[in-house]
This record gives sequence, structure tokens and C-alpha cells, in this order.
Amino acid sequence: MSAVVAEVMNSIGRAAVEAAAVLALADTDRKNAALASAAASLRARVGEIICANARDVDAAEAAGLGGAMLDRLRLDAARVEAMAVGVEQIAALADPIGTVAADWVRPNGLRIQRVRVPLGVIGIIYESRPNVTCDAGALCLKSGNAAILRGGSESQQSSAVIHSCLVEGLRAAGLPDECIQLVPTTDRAAVGHMLGSMTDCIDVIVPRGGKSLIARVQQEARVPVIGHLEGNCHVYVDRAADLGMARAIVMNSKLRRTGICGAAETLLVDEACAATHLAPIVRDLLDAGCEVRGDAAVQAVDPRVRPATEDDWYTEYLDAVIAARVVRGVDAAIAHIARYGSAHTESIVTDDAATARRFLARVDSAIVLHNASTQFADGGEFGMGAEIGISTDRFHARGPVGVEQLTSYKYVVRGSGQVRP
Amino acid sequence: MSAVVAEVMNSIGRAAVEAAAVLALADTDRKNAALASAAASLRARVGEIICANARDVDAAEAAGLGGAMLDRLRLDAARVEAMAVGVEQIAALADPIGTVAADWVRPNGLRIQRVRVPLGVIGIIYESRPNVTCDAGALCLKSGNAAILRGGSESQQSSAVIHSCLVEGLRAAGLPDECIQLVPTTDRAAVGHMLGSMTDCIDVIVPRGGKSLIARVQQEARVPVIGHLEGNCHVYVDRAADLGMARAIVMNSKLRRTGICGAAETLLVDEACAATHLAPIVRDLLDAGCEVRGDAAVQAVDPRVRPATEDDWYTEYLDAVIAARVVRGVDAAIAHIARYGSAHTESIVTDDAATARRFLARVDSAIVLHNASTQFADGGEFGMGAEIGISTDRFHARGPVGVEQLTSYKYVVRGSGQVRP
Repeated sequence: MSAVVAEVMNSIGRAAVEAAAVLALADTDRKNAALASAAASLRARVGEIICANARDVDAAEAAGLGGAMLDRLRLDAARVEAMAVGVEQIAALADPIGTVAADWVRPNGLRIQRVRVPLGVIGIIYESRPNVTCDAGALCLKSGNAAILRGGSESQQSSAVIHSCLVEGLRAAGLPDECIQLVPTTDRAAVGHMLGSMTDCIDVIVPRGGKSLIARVQQEARVPVIGHLEGNCHVYVDRAADLGMARAIVMNSKLRRTGICGAAETLLVDEACAATHLAPIVRDLLDAGCEVRGDAAVQAVDPRVRPATEDDWYTEYLDAVIAARVVRGVDAAIAHIARYGSAHTESIVTDDAATARRFLARVDSAIVLHNASTQFADGGEFGMGAEIGISTDRFHARGPVGVEQLTSYKYVVRGSGQVRP
Repeated sequence: MSAVVAEVMNSIGRAAVEAAAVLALADTDRKNAALASAAASLRARVGEIICANARDVDAAEAAGLGGAMLDRLRLDAARVEAMAVGVEQIAALADPIGTVAADWVRPNGLRIQRVRVPLGVIGIIYESRPNVTCDAGALCLKSGNAAILRGGSESQQSSAVIHSCLVEGLRAAGLPDECIQLVPTTDRAAVGHMLGSMTDCIDVIVPRGGKSLIARVQQEARVPVIGHLEGNCHVYVDRAADLGMARAIVMNSKLRRTGICGAAETLLVDEACAATHLAPIVRDLLDAGCEVRGDAAVQAVDPRVRPATEDDWYTEYLDAVIAARVVRGVDAAIAHIARYGSAHTESIVTDDAATARRFLARVDSAIVLHNASTQFADGGEFGMGAEIGISTDRFHARGPVGVEQLTSYKYVVRGSGQVRP
């Protein structure tokens, strides 16, 4: 660990704690004014953002980075406008801070309120997407938390300009610059310092990125983490499923977008309806260009189906590939999901209310759906506004992590001289 | 790390995960039946518990353990009865599991419910109090969580009998024995294994004990922790305080019980009322046998006051000792608390509503009180029933940790064939 990195990070941490104390008391109008100004600044500086991004993209290409990462990195005018709109949408969200989540009076007259307060300082560790700089900064600001943003080195120049737009917004509203800080070094030691040595000034770390980043965070973190593990999501087509609905839900769950965590990765079909339902569903997928890896029953449907291995049931493809097998009814589906799933999002298609209840109660995932696509696993689709990810943790926040999930609470107790007997 | 300890602990962990899956689906009546039977078993086996405890106490005395620890360790018929009553009170609490914390319908017709579910497997690491075996086991059971209890070696024999009463309750209700497991070894390596190597099977660790235990947990834990740090609690007597109320609240906050985390440790008196309020409050404390360590202004009140050092402002005495100083109004009190406090519980005594609002908004502690004793910092006093402690974390649970705080949630989404556009 470089002593310089430690010094820089500790200084950022102290500044964040001070800024957080100011931001925690900022009223909604002030926070929204900062967000509105930041959106205006993003629009005004679109050219500058795109130029900085072009330098990032050139460097990434020269370094031989691949197509998917380049696509995540690249910004154009439409993507910058989408960031600005995103910031305005966050401004339009209800402010969770200061809301009274519970309110009761004790027999002795004490009135107790549970009031939402910010978590404090949130560290975001992410990879090549420069828009995370904007989304995460704005979400933290709205929820009254100071943010320490540590983006990937590939997006450093883009993120620097986007960050300066957010700071312009803070200044316009009279809030400290240090409410949203961008780590100025690409030294990987900075990440280690955030994870392991900043327990006094970071209240929670949110990692955004691939498996190697998440694994490093889980391994090294000494501060609380809101984890976003993989989404190995399942669709189970029950014997009482309407075939048309099942076809539409499977196609949408798998293929609407294949790269998001709510995309389905495994199809389970009840053996009691396999004769009627399996072939049309599998052929829909194959005809749409999706690779299907199946057990013997699925392979028998179409010669294009490849054999599935044990590994396939564990795999989050994030691509146009699906694993498929026939199971003996809802309980076998529940057992398969418990064994291989990642507790993210699973859907059952059935017209049998009792079977649906059983699945919804017994599948222990952040999101369980009945007769709907797994691709609804999204804070926006839930009506929660922007989100920082889908948590697969059970602790603190589970499912979409929006502004409300970035809060803590305190108890405010009003008395008239009560002492405890 | 002994390989035998690792093997024992991994076996306990696997059994806990399996039991947790059963317990998560157990209905309220079954859990309450287990608790009622456990209470009956505690009463039936009171003699056996007291005999086992006498062996623990003898061994502790032989090992030279001190009075406070012996007092925490020792059980008599009244304390066993209190445990049984506590278990019955937990049975009488509302069951949080399955309750719908939020319920809304999206414009596309999707109905979304946020439903409480257990956290899963909770590890409790505690010291010499055998009653924690009973309280923690019963709270975890009620909240649908499997418990792995690791008590101190001093209370091992008492805890073993108490644990066997809880298991009798589980059996009577047809629940797996492994819903509540007591770690059978006093090898300290077992604690290290729980903290560092059981991330796959323990969802959260709750430490109960002194500073060295808490420090070890904070240092080594790789699983989420619900922390219970010290309670360096403050009472601030404002210029607009009623003197009689202030005297009663200070006395009760400090001296009702000095060994609990909600006991006041520092008294702050507004300089604007020091001439009238300081002397009577300080003399009340001194006359009641409380040591007072004060700044110059407090020392001037009475020759029995000793000088306070900088360390005193940081100290949780848990004894009949209080630090006291005069401050320049509410903002100085807030600043003192921010600098020296532990963010546990603080109280303001004032008749000025605006000053109270300022204190309640700006003091960033788990519990802030107006015109009431800090000794109300207690889950029972909050009406939450039994608690496993007062969390000073901001993450997941803050303040009293009762059955509701030992839960997570999942989203249950019901549709009619919706796919995402």
C-alpha cells in the first residue's frame, strides 16, 4: 500500500464525513436544486464529456479492451441526455430523509417516532460505465449521503468531467463540494484502502461490476457491503400454465435484454405439461437465435438443443443462452432453484392459485413473480425510481436498492419528564 | 485452527441452514407452541439448571473470576422463572414473518408486496450470562431464524441445560432440534471459525459482551454483524429546563441502574442556567453516592467533585460515576456529543420546543429523547418486546434489536402475463 494513496484516501474520508454531516441536515429543496443544476451542467458540457470519453475509448482500444466493455464505456449525446434526465428523475423522487416510518405512544406517555436518516458516507466501487458516476452520485445526494466514487481506470477522464458537473450542481445549491468525491487516483491500492482501512469514515460500500470485483469486495471488505451478486434467474412453467402466456413470459424473460441481472438463465418445465408446452417454448427460443442447453427431454424436442452439463444449472450467461430441463412439478422446481439459484429473481407461470402461493412462499429469492417476466426485476419497474442495483443480500437491503434503501433511521422520543421506574 | 473444531462448526452450520429452511415456513402457532413448551421445561427443570449453574459458579470462583462476572453468571429460582416468563412474553409478541410491510399496484397491473422473511441463520457470541442462551434462542425462534449460540466457557454447564429445555420445546412442537444449536466446545477457535469461515451458512452475527469481544468481532468478522458498541450517553440540561424535571431525569438516567448501556455517563449543563441548576443537580448525584468528575465550573460547586480529564468525556463508566461540564447552549452540547459520544442515546431537558427540535434533529444517535430519562433505551420500554441488544450500527438495524429487526424481506409480485416492453 502506497503511503501517498493512504494519505489521499484518508483525506477524502475525513472530508466526506464532514460533508455528510451538512448534507444530512440539508432540506429537500436544496438537494433538488443541486440535482437540477447538475442536470443543466451535464447538458451544457455535453461536448466536453464526449471529448473526454473519446480519449478514454481510444486508450481502451489501444489497450485491447473488448467490444462489450467498450460499449459500456462509450458515451454519445443521447447517453449524456439520458444521464441528465436520470438526475432530474431522481430530483423528482420523494425525499426519504426525515420521513416518519413509525409513530406510537407508550402507556407512560412517551411518544416514539422512527425517523429516516442517511446512512452517512457511501463508497461506490465500479468499473467501466461512466454513467454510474452520475447515477450513484445523484442517488447518494438525494438520500442525504456523502459519496466516495471510485470508478474504473478506463472511464477516468469521462468520469472526471461528469463528476465536475455534479460538483457544479452542489455549488449552485450551496452544498459542500465534498458531498460527492471522485477518487483521483487509478491506483488499485485505493480500492483496498476503501475496503479495509476506512471503517471510521465509510458506512457502506456498494460494488458495481463483474464477478472478480464482487469477489474482491467480499474477500477484503471490513465495512458493510450492499452486495449485488449474480442473477441466475429461473422461469418455471407449471402444468397449469397458459401456453401463450408461458411462451411470452419465457421469451421476454430471456431475450428482451440478455445482459441484465434480471434476465432468465434457466427454464424449468413441469413434466405434466411437457408434452404440450415444452416444444413450442423451446422452438421460440431457438428460432429467435437463443442457444438452448437441455436435459434429455429437452434435447428430444429439437436437434438444435445442446446437452446441458451440471455447470449450466449454476451459470449466469448474460447472453442469448438458456439452460432448460423438465422437472416433476412445483416442488422439484423449488428444489432446483434452492440448489442452483442465486436468490435473485424467479417466476412461476401457472393458473393454479394454490401452486402459485406455494412457489411464492417457498422460493427464497429477493423477488418472486407469478405470471410475469423476470425482467421486471428493476427499481424503476417497481416504481421506486432510480436504483443503484439489485441486492442479493438478506441484510439491510434486499432487491432493488433505491433512495429509501440508502437510509438508516433513528428513534426520536418526546416526553414530559418521564423517568424509568 | 483445530481441524476438529472446523469440522464440528461446519456440521453445525449445515444443520442450521437446513433447520432454517424448515423454520422459515413454520406458522406462528407452531413457533409459539415450541416457546410455551420451552418455558414449561425451564420451570420443570429449575433444580437441574441451578445445580449446573452452581458447578459453573464454583469453577469460576476457583478460577478467580470477579464479583460482577459472578453476579452475571449466577442463577437462582427467581432468575430461572424470569427466563421462563421472558420466553412466554416472546411467544406473546406479534409474529413479524409473513407480514406485508408494503403493498402497491403498478400502472401495468403488477401487484408488488414487500413481505417479511427471516434473516436465515443467526450466530450469537456472548460471554458469561447464561440467560442469553434463553433470550437469544427464543428471539431467533420467534423471528423464524435458526440460532447458533456460542456462550462463554464460564456458563457452559448452565447454558447446556437451558439449551436442552429449548430443544424440548422444539421437539414438542415438531420442529427440528437444529433450530437452536449450542456450540459444544469452549475452544476459542470456534469463535474465529464463526466469524471468518462460515459466510456460506451464517447470515448475521450478534455479539453480546464487553469491549474485547466486540473488538475481536469487528476485527475478524467476514459475515455481517449487528454491533452493540458502548453507550456513552449524555443528558443535556438546557437554559429552559424545569429544574425539578432536570434533577429527576439526571438522577434516573445515571443511577437507576448504572450497569446498562442506556445509563448516562456525561452531564452537560447550559451555562445560561448553571447558576441555578448546576449545584442542585450535582449535589443530588454526590449525595446519592455518585462520583462526579467535572470541569472547573462543576468543581466550584462542591469540594467533593473531582477534576475531569479529557479521557472522562470518552468513558462509559457503567458505574456510579459521571462526567460533568458546563457548555455554551444547545449547539455546544450537540458539538460535545458529536465529538465524544458513541451515538447510542442522548436526552435534552428543556421547555423550549425550538431548542428541543434542534437537538433531536442534529444529534445523530440511535435514540434521542426530549424530557425523558436515557434509561428508556430498551426494547421493552419501546413496546417492542424482548430485544437482543441496542444496535449502534447505522446498517440494517439501529437502536433496540427485537424480533422485527431480526428479519429481512422479499418482494412478491403477482401479474397476469405481463412482459416488459
